[in-house]
Amino acid sequence: MDRGEIMNNPKIIIIGGGFGGLWAAKALKNKAVDVTLIDRKNHHTFQPLLYQVATAVLSPGEIASPIRRILHSAKNIEVILGEASAFDKEGQFVILADGSKIKYDYLIAAAGARHSYFGHDDWETLAPGLKTIEDALEMRRRVLLAFELAEREAYLTGSHKPLNFVVVGGGPTGVELAGAIAGIARQALSKDFKAIDTTEARVMLFEGSDRVLGTFAEDLSAKAKTQLEDLGVEVHLNSFVTEIESGRVKVGENWIECDVVLWATGVAASPIGKALGVETDKAGRVFVQPDLTIPGYKNIFVIGDMASIKQENGEPVPGLSPAAMQMGNLTSANILRDLKNEPRKNFRYIDKGTMATIGRSKAIADIKGWHFSGFIAWLMWLFLHVVFLIGFRNRLYVLLEWFWAYLSRERSARLITGNAEELRHALHFLEADHSETAAKTVKEKQSSKAKA
Amino acid sequence: MDRGEIMNNPKIIIIGGGFGGLWAAKALKNKAVDVTLIDRKNHHTFQPLLYQVATAVLSPGEIASPIRRILHSAKNIEVILGEASAFDKEGQFVILADGSKIKYDYLIAAAGARHSYFGHDDWETLAPGLKTIEDALEMRRRVLLAFELAEREAYLTGSHKPLNFVVVGGGPTGVELAGAIAGIARQALSKDFKAIDTTEARVMLFEGSDRVLGTFAEDLSAKAKTQLEDLGVEVHLNSFVTEIESGRVKVGENWIECDVVLWATGVAASPIGKALGVETDKAGRVFVQPDLTIPGYKNIFVIGDMASIKQENGEPVPGLSPAAMQMGNLTSANILRDLKNEPRKNFRYIDKGTMATIGRSKAIADIKGWHFSGFIAWLMWLFLHVVFLIGFRNRLYVLLEWFWAYLSRERSARLITGNAEELRHALHFLEADHSETAAKTVKEKQSSKAKA
Repeated sequence: MDRGEIMNNPKIIIIGGGFGGLWAAKALKNKAVDVTLIDRKNHHTFQPLLYQVATAVLSPGEIASPIRRILHSAKNIEVILGEASAFDKEGQFVILADGSKIKYDYLIAAAGARHSYFGHDDWETLAPGLKTIEDALEMRRRVLLAFELAEREAYLTGSHKPLNFVVVGGGPTGVELAGAIAGIARQALSKDFKAIDTTEARVMLFEGSDRVLGTFAEDLSAKAKTQLEDLGVEVHLNSFVTEIESGRVKVGENWIECDVVLWATGVAASPIGKALGVETDKAGRVFVQPDLTIPGYKNIFVIGDMASIKQENGEPVPGLSPAAMQMGNLTSANILRDLKNEPRKNFRYIDKGTMATIGRSKAIADIKGWHFSGFIAWLMWLFLHVVFLIGFRNRLYVLLEWFWAYLSRERSARLITGNAEELRHALHFLEADHSETAAKTVKEKQSSKAKA
Repeated sequence: MDRGEIMNNPKIIIIGGGFGGLWAAKALKNKAVDVTLIDRKNHHTFQPLLYQVATAVLSPGEIASPIRRILHSAKNIEVILGEASAFDKEGQFVILADGSKIKYDYLIAAAGARHSYFGHDDWETLAPGLKTIEDALEMRRRVLLAFELAEREAYLTGSHKPLNFVVVGGGPTGVELAGAIAGIARQALSKDFKAIDTTEARVMLFEGSDRVLGTFAEDLSAKAKTQLEDLGVEVHLNSFVTEIESGRVKVGENWIECDVVLWATGVAASPIGKALGVETDKAGRVFVQPDLTIPGYKNIFVIGDMASIKQENGEPVPGLSPAAMQMGNLTSANILRDLKNEPRKNFRYIDKGTMATIGRSKAIADIKGWHFSGFIAWLMWLFLHVVFLIGFRNRLYVLLEWFWAYLSRERSARLITGNAEELRHALHFLEADHSETAAKTVKEKQSSKAKA
């Protein structure tokens, strides 16, 4: 391949290094195209395991890998850190947030989605969602800090406010978070706290519809609910959270006090969809053609959680990683077909099965109509998530972590880091009775406990 | 043991869960005393390996463990998150930042030290130091981001500013950081970047005195300097950094452009020393009695990096973890001696040897006068650091990480996280020529590279 040839290679820009963008890039590896992948982060995040970072089972480095490392053997792929903010569709330029313009022949928009607060963006600081490593660390910080502050309050005053966790949304993320927090409270932390009884912590899951995991069959939803309740989660169906304030949420007419609120509902596709100047649904997903292009531009593809497209059965293609990977693969294959003057193929989602995990030895799975639940579904879930995790090293470490957590019932990543100022604030303005007498009282209580 | 007995147990408060505080606590485990350990963090940090977190070898969870987990089998020890801010030495109370008062019979102050900027506190944001997990993550973020921004600039414009790293201070931390960054640039990252040549990055170490690792013998200092230079570090002795601004430092009369400045010099003991109202040295270390108490108060001990005390040979006891552990042990033993009406023992520092690591297969060690350097010293260093790391799990993981890094020459924890706003800022306001022509230019350059 001489330089002239390389110079004539079509330039492909991929925006986003999630499942869609990364699989599109892998399918173009060392082909006669010139690829640039742009992402705001330097790492690909294995989102299906983010909740395990949020609940102190795994460390960030175990589920995230530098994108340029993953693609380093692809000589035709450059990875740059950047934020696409606008597009010149006629001139075929991506315009970055700093004003740089990059020319493309093909554009693949795969910037994913975040959670939406249904118009209450002010809830974000009160009830963080879970899409990035930073989100997961913020959740972990809040969950672990709630236990620490309760212990501190009990030590200093002899009693503490009820330790309540609220999870909003009964989809896979909400179910995973609720189950994992219940697991932490009942098992992992119980022996380490002396002034409080962590097993008394309440985990409340609020779901607006009449069942959890509503995309699954009804029998599996029912099993998931039972398994959650076995773990000690209070599952509230047909329950909408209508207000969130610091320290409490409103459900229907009732205010419920809580230390931590975690947001696990709502989808808002990346604003890049709107920046492309095409029609989107309410969640900001772009209505794409059967070949995943936008109307009028055969060289602009929108894939993954940013795309809105129906399956043959009329159901929307779900916002799951297998769908995004399949879209990435198909898009790159279609670009390579263009170059060989072959006709493109339309996207057809292949549902190889879906599964959701609930907790230790608890999960549900639907594999082409076969329903599984409990231990066997959990083993299948473990196996598949390790297989799809990127990189030998990450697989090994996650396996070890799980093995360790399973045997010891401990959590290994229990660090409260970051937000030093907020932590300071929490420590400086504790609402409590700070007398030495109170401290003595709790000592007495502890002594009785020790005696008993 | 009935309740009355427990109630009469002396109350011991330990401030700080570093090496000093933690070893003091361990020595009191399940003795007839009632211990409270107060720390601002929920975790003990294995500081000797912090530089490996800063340079993407290890993840935070591998060198830090929750303090309450470490001490969970000690029924007489309570751990609380808190910040001691004042003391009532006559009434025997610790006063926390939120106003809470906790009564003590014995107080052990072991709050450690941070780095000092010699009166230039404004340098802290420009040149972060390395004492906490958060510090290490901030260093990692800056180091990795510098490479990413250079790659981005080269991709967009065809060239980039020189990639310069400055380390201020030639003590153990400075030497470790400089060696590790050189290792990253020359090995771990070189294959992953396409528009820049990471091996051209310069790592400059500035040390004010006439040798690095000045607490070691002269021959070992000289060997350390040679080993650093073998790794590609530019070692500048008798060189004081007199000014730091964004993007440059002043050394003598010269300004040196640099992307990242890391601070590895100066010691400032915790302000808790001054809050005790006793005499301190310039660095804020408390002048302690031979039994590590403060003058006039036989029930108040100051240990670890907060204490200033001389060895029998007239040299100060060094601010190293073995000294802190020995002080913690002695203090708790002396408290237990008090309870048995036995005389206290004075502190005597036992120097079992000191070592410093420089990079892959490179280190120096001085074991009771025997000098080692190179591979053998490096193996000794590895062995000792794994042995002293807390917890079986952490030991296993660190061993695996090192084995992996040694074989693959990769770094596994290469995530840029946190400070989303700053990252955004970096991406929005890149000082570069953003024309498409420039982008084309670099494509041509890359093509030539690919051809070659």
